[in-house]
Amino acid sequence: MKNIDDVLQGIDGALDESIARLFELLRFPSVGTDPAFHGACRDAAAWLVRLLSGMGFQTRMDETTGQPVVVAEYAPKGVPSHAPRILFYGHYDVQPPDPLDLWESPPFEPQLRKGADGEARIFARGACDDKGQLMTFLEASRAWIKAKGGLPFHLTVLLEGDEEGDSTHLDRYVAKNRARLKPDIVFICDTGMWDARTPAITTRLRGCIAEEIVISGPSKDLHSGYYGGAARNPIRVLTKILGELHDRNGRVTLPGFYDGVDPVPASTRRQWKSLNFPEKKYLKAVGLSVPAGEKGYPVYEQIWSRPTAEINGIYSGYTGAGSKTVLPAEAMAKLTFRLVGRQTPAQIRKGLRAFVKARLPADCRVRYKSEGGDSMAATVAETSPWVRLAQEALTAEWGREPVLMAEGASIPVVGTFKSSLKVDSLLVGFGLEDDGAHSPNEKYNLTSFRKGTRSWARIIAGIAEQQERRKS
Amino acid sequence: MKNIDDVLQGIDGALDESIARLFELLRFPSVGTDPAFHGACRDAAAWLVRLLSGMGFQTRMDETTGQPVVVAEYAPKGVPSHAPRILFYGHYDVQPPDPLDLWESPPFEPQLRKGADGEARIFARGACDDKGQLMTFLEASRAWIKAKGGLPFHLTVLLEGDEEGDSTHLDRYVAKNRARLKPDIVFICDTGMWDARTPAITTRLRGCIAEEIVISGPSKDLHSGYYGGAARNPIRVLTKILGELHDRNGRVTLPGFYDGVDPVPASTRRQWKSLNFPEKKYLKAVGLSVPAGEKGYPVYEQIWSRPTAEINGIYSGYTGAGSKTVLPAEAMAKLTFRLVGRQTPAQIRKGLRAFVKARLPADCRVRYKSEGGDSMAATVAETSPWVRLAQEALTAEWGREPVLMAEGASIPVVGTFKSSLKVDSLLVGFGLEDDGAHSPNEKYNLTSFRKGTRSWARIIAGIAEQQERRKS
Repeated sequence: MKNIDDVLQGIDGALDESIARLFELLRFPSVGTDPAFHGACRDAAAWLVRLLSGMGFQTRMDETTGQPVVVAEYAPKGVPSHAPRILFYGHYDVQPPDPLDLWESPPFEPQLRKGADGEARIFARGACDDKGQLMTFLEASRAWIKAKGGLPFHLTVLLEGDEEGDSTHLDRYVAKNRARLKPDIVFICDTGMWDARTPAITTRLRGCIAEEIVISGPSKDLHSGYYGGAARNPIRVLTKILGELHDRNGRVTLPGFYDGVDPVPASTRRQWKSLNFPEKKYLKAVGLSVPAGEKGYPVYEQIWSRPTAEINGIYSGYTGAGSKTVLPAEAMAKLTFRLVGRQTPAQIRKGLRAFVKARLPADCRVRYKSEGGDSMAATVAETSPWVRLAQEALTAEWGREPVLMAEGASIPVVGTFKSSLKVDSLLVGFGLEDDGAHSPNEKYNLTSFRKGTRSWARIIAGIAEQQERRKS
Repeated sequence: MKNIDDVLQGIDGALDESIARLFELLRFPSVGTDPAFHGACRDAAAWLVRLLSGMGFQTRMDETTGQPVVVAEYAPKGVPSHAPRILFYGHYDVQPPDPLDLWESPPFEPQLRKGADGEARIFARGACDDKGQLMTFLEASRAWIKAKGGLPFHLTVLLEGDEEGDSTHLDRYVAKNRARLKPDIVFICDTGMWDARTPAITTRLRGCIAEEIVISGPSKDLHSGYYGGAARNPIRVLTKILGELHDRNGRVTLPGFYDGVDPVPASTRRQWKSLNFPEKKYLKAVGLSVPAGEKGYPVYEQIWSRPTAEINGIYSGYTGAGSKTVLPAEAMAKLTFRLVGRQTPAQIRKGLRAFVKARLPADCRVRYKSEGGDSMAATVAETSPWVRLAQEALTAEWGREPVLMAEGASIPVVGTFKSSLKVDSLLVGFGLEDDGAHSPNEKYNLTSFRKGTRSWARIIAGIAEQQERRKS
C-alpha cells in the first residue's frame, strides 16, 4: 500500500482540532422534523458550507422541499477524467433529543468524557448519528488533501437535513439532479461495526413499506348492550384479519409475498454462520429468550435476509380508565413490511389488499393510507471491487478482517441511489450497538472517530493506488 | 278494576304542577361522575328528601362511599302487615352533558317544546334517564295518596346518585342495609317502551363483566428494522388471541363459556317471534344490513338471549401521524362479555384466562384488570303475578297489550337486588328509542310522562285490588 504515514500522522496530530470542529457541528440543534429547529438546521448547513469551502470544495446550499442540502464538489488536480466519481452522502439533521431529563449532559453541549474502561466518548445528540460519522470522512479528506495536495478521485459531498424525517425531500432532489450527481459509487458512513474491535461493511439492507389500514363498520359508535352480538364490530374484524397475517411457522400469508425472495448464496450463508451471531445476548438485551421469527432460520437470517410483516400500532374504541361498553365505528392499525431481494413495494401492497379483501365481512369497508418512504432492499455484491478495497483498508487499520454483515433496518436513501442513479452504495461505518442513536446520552467513542477517520484515509489510499496502477 | 278515575283526574288536573316539580329536579346538574358537580348531586338529593317528606314519607339522606342515597319509607295507614313490601329504585345522577355545543337549549335549563307532530317534549339532561322516569312513579304515588288517603302497600323509595358511574357504591350500601330494605319486589322505571304507542315490560337483562388484558413481551419498545422478524411483537400476539375469540359461526370459543346458557322457553320464543322485531330497520339505523352475531339466531335473540364477547377498545404502539417502525413492549385490549341465564362472572373470567394462557407464546406475560361492576343476567318469570298485574295496568292505560321484551344491555342494580336481597325487579319504563339518553338534546315525551304516571297509578290500583280481594 502506498505510503500514507503522513496522512495518518496528520490525522492523529490534528485530532484535537478535528474534535473541536465536530463539537461546533454538534452544537447546532438541527432537529429536522421540528419546525422550531429549522433555523438551526439552516445554520448547520451554512456551517458545513463554510467548512467545505475552506477545504477547497466548490460548495453551495441548495433548497429542497424540506431542509436545504449542502453540495460540495471537489475538482481534483491532475487526476484524469476516468478517475472514479464518488458521491459521499451524510445527514446533518438529528433525532429530537427528548426525553431531556434522561440526559446526563445537555444534548447540544457536546462533552468528551473518559469512562472507567479508559475509553473517551463524545456525548451529544448526533455524536454518532450522523454528525460524528460523516465527519470521519470529511476529516480524512482534509488530512489527505493537506498531506498530498489533492484527492485521487472526483468527489461530490451531499449532506441532507431530512434523513430522520421525510425522505421524499431528498428523493425529489436526487431525481431532479440526477445528471449532475451521477457517480460510480456512493460512500455512506451511517452504519455500525460488528463490535468495538471488529470493523464491518454492510452489504445488505432490508427495504420497507408502511401502510395504515382502517376498517369501518357501523355509521357511529354503538352501545355494546343494545348492539353487541348483532352488529359488526370493526375491532373484531381487524384483529381477526391481523391474527391471520402469519401462519403457525411465522411465515407471512399475503398472496405473492415471497415472490422475489432469493435464497442467500451458500458462500454468504457460510460467512454469516462463521460470525457466531450472539443470538442469546441479542435477545436477552431486550428481555427475550426465544427467536420469534420464521421457523427454520437462525436469528441473523430472520433479521438480515427474511422479509417481515409487523404491526407497529393499533387503536380503536375506548382506551381510557375503566370500561366503556362501546362497539366502535372503526378500527385502525399501522403496519410495516421489511423487504428483501427483489420484493417490490407494489407487490406487497397488492398482496395486502387482496388478503384484506378476501377476509372483509359484509357491512365493512377498508381504507389504506400509504405512509410514503417505500424502499426496496439494497444489496451490494460482496465481490464488488469497492467492497474488496474497503476490506483491505479496514483490515490494515483495525488489524482484523472486517465482517461483511447485513442489517435488518432500511436506509431508504440507498434505495433511492440505486433506483434513481442506478448506483450501489458502499456502507462503512463505525457506530456501536451501545451508541444510543435516537436515545438519550447518544455518544460516539473517540476510537470510532479517530480510527474511523484513519479508515477512510486508508480507503482513499486504496483508490489512489488503483489510479497509480492504471497510470503505470 | 277498582275505581281510580279520581286518581287519574288528579294526575291530569295537576299535570302542570308535576312538570314544574320535574323541572326543579332537572335544573340540578347532578353529574355523579364529575367531582365538580358533587355539590349539585347533594343539592338534588336534599331536594328529593324535601319532596318525599312533603308527601308524608319518613325520609333521610344516607351517606355512601359515593353520592348520598335518598331513602324514603312510607308507613301505610290501615294496611295489614302482610301487604306487599315494595322497593322503588331510581337514580338522580345524570350523564355528563358534553358535547355542549350540540344542545339546542342548555342541558340544565329544561324546556317544554312542541314538535311539528303535535307532541310536546321535555328537553334536558336527565329528562328521560332517569329523572323523568322516576318522577312518574313519585307523581303517581302523590296523586294516589291525595285521592285515597294512603298507599295500599309498604313502600321504600331508594334513589341513588352513582348509577352512571361506579355501581359498587350502591352495591355496598344495599349489602349493608339488606335487612332494612328487603322487599317482596323491586319496581324500577329505567327502561323503554316497545314503540311510542306500545308499552313494554322488560323481563330479561343481560349481565356484564369487563376485563382489561395486557400482553407484554420485550422489556422496551424495539426498532422493527433491528428486531422485526426475530423478536416477539405483543400486538401480533394480542391480535392473534383476539382473532380466535369467536369461531366461524360467531360462537365464543372460551372454555366453558356456554355453561348455564339455557334455551329460551318455547312460549317466550313464540311471543318474541310474534313481535316482528324490525331487524332491517334496527341495523339500517346504524349503517349496517346483515346480522353479524351467532349464526342460527334471529337478531332479537342475538341481543336478548345470547351471550357475547366484544372488544371495546384496543391500543398499542405508535398511533400518531405517519409511520414509526416500533415493536411495542406491550399491547392492551378492553373486553366486555354480556351474560345470560346462569352464566357467572367467575366462570367467564376463568374461561378467558385459560384461553389466553393456552395461546400465550414464550417470552410473553399477561396481566388482567377487572373493571368491577360484574353482574349476572336478570330474568323475571313472565308468569310472575307482578308481571301479570303490570300487564293489565298497562293494557288499560295504553289500549294495547304491553310487549314482554328483553334488553341486551345490563342494569347492574337488578343483579344486585337479585343476589343481595334475593328479590326480582319489575321493569316498567316509558323511554323511547329516540329519547337520546346519554346524548345531546335528551328528551322525554310529555305523553311518556303523563301516561307513565297514569300507568303507575293503575299498577298501584292493581295492588289495592289484590288487597281488597284478600280482605273480602
